Amino acid sequence: MSITLINVFTVAPENQQRLLDLLTRATDEFVCHAPGFLASTLHRSLDGTKVTMYAQWRSIEDYEAMRRDPGPLPLFQEALSFAKFDPGIYEIVRTFSAPE
Amino acid sequence: MSITLINVFTVAPENQQRLLDLLTRATDEFVCHAPGFLASTLHRSLDGTKVTMYAQWRSIEDYEAMRRDPGPLPLFQEALSFAKFDPGIYEIVRTFSAPE
Repeated sequence: MSITLINVFTVAPENQQRLLDLLTRATDEFVCHAPGFLASTLHRSLDGTKVTMYAQWRSIEDYEAMRRDPGPLPLFQEALSFAKFDPGIYEIVRTFSAPE
Repeated sequence: MSITLINVFTVAPENQQRLLDLLTRATDEFVCHAPGFLASTLHRSLDGTKVTMYAQWRSIEDYEAMRRDPGPLPLFQEALSFAKFDPGIYEIVRTFSAPE
């Protein structure tokens, strides 16, 4: 069963776009090419204080291998120099839809 | 454009299932019938300390109207008696897929 990463970054609003640019670059250049990466969605909070990456991976081992890859590390380190990172590793319990 | 709610609850691991049950009941009985609700996914963290609801709504006004509905309020109040709630209102910036 795949796992879901929900990683919430907290930033000063003047740094939100800089963080979005860094995470976009890290994902385009490295993360989405990593073995076991399935898909992800990048979100900006309307109040400017948060950026959240919601990602599906084949396994926790695949995700952890990517985090050890030296390629994207400088981008992550730059992001963490001005943003607070609150990670979460999840499984999906249930999906709800609006009734017909 | 639709909005995304990413609501992260922090709980003691012994209360994670209780919180999942409350949020499932609130969504089945009230939230998914509210005008403007599109879809949501409920997640449990593997370490037991978090529960995250990822939801799409037609507009922030629709979501706020549901939060004022007295129907699900007792369920939300019970949840907040033993869980910390960290809400976020987002727009999607970009979606990434694994290359072919």
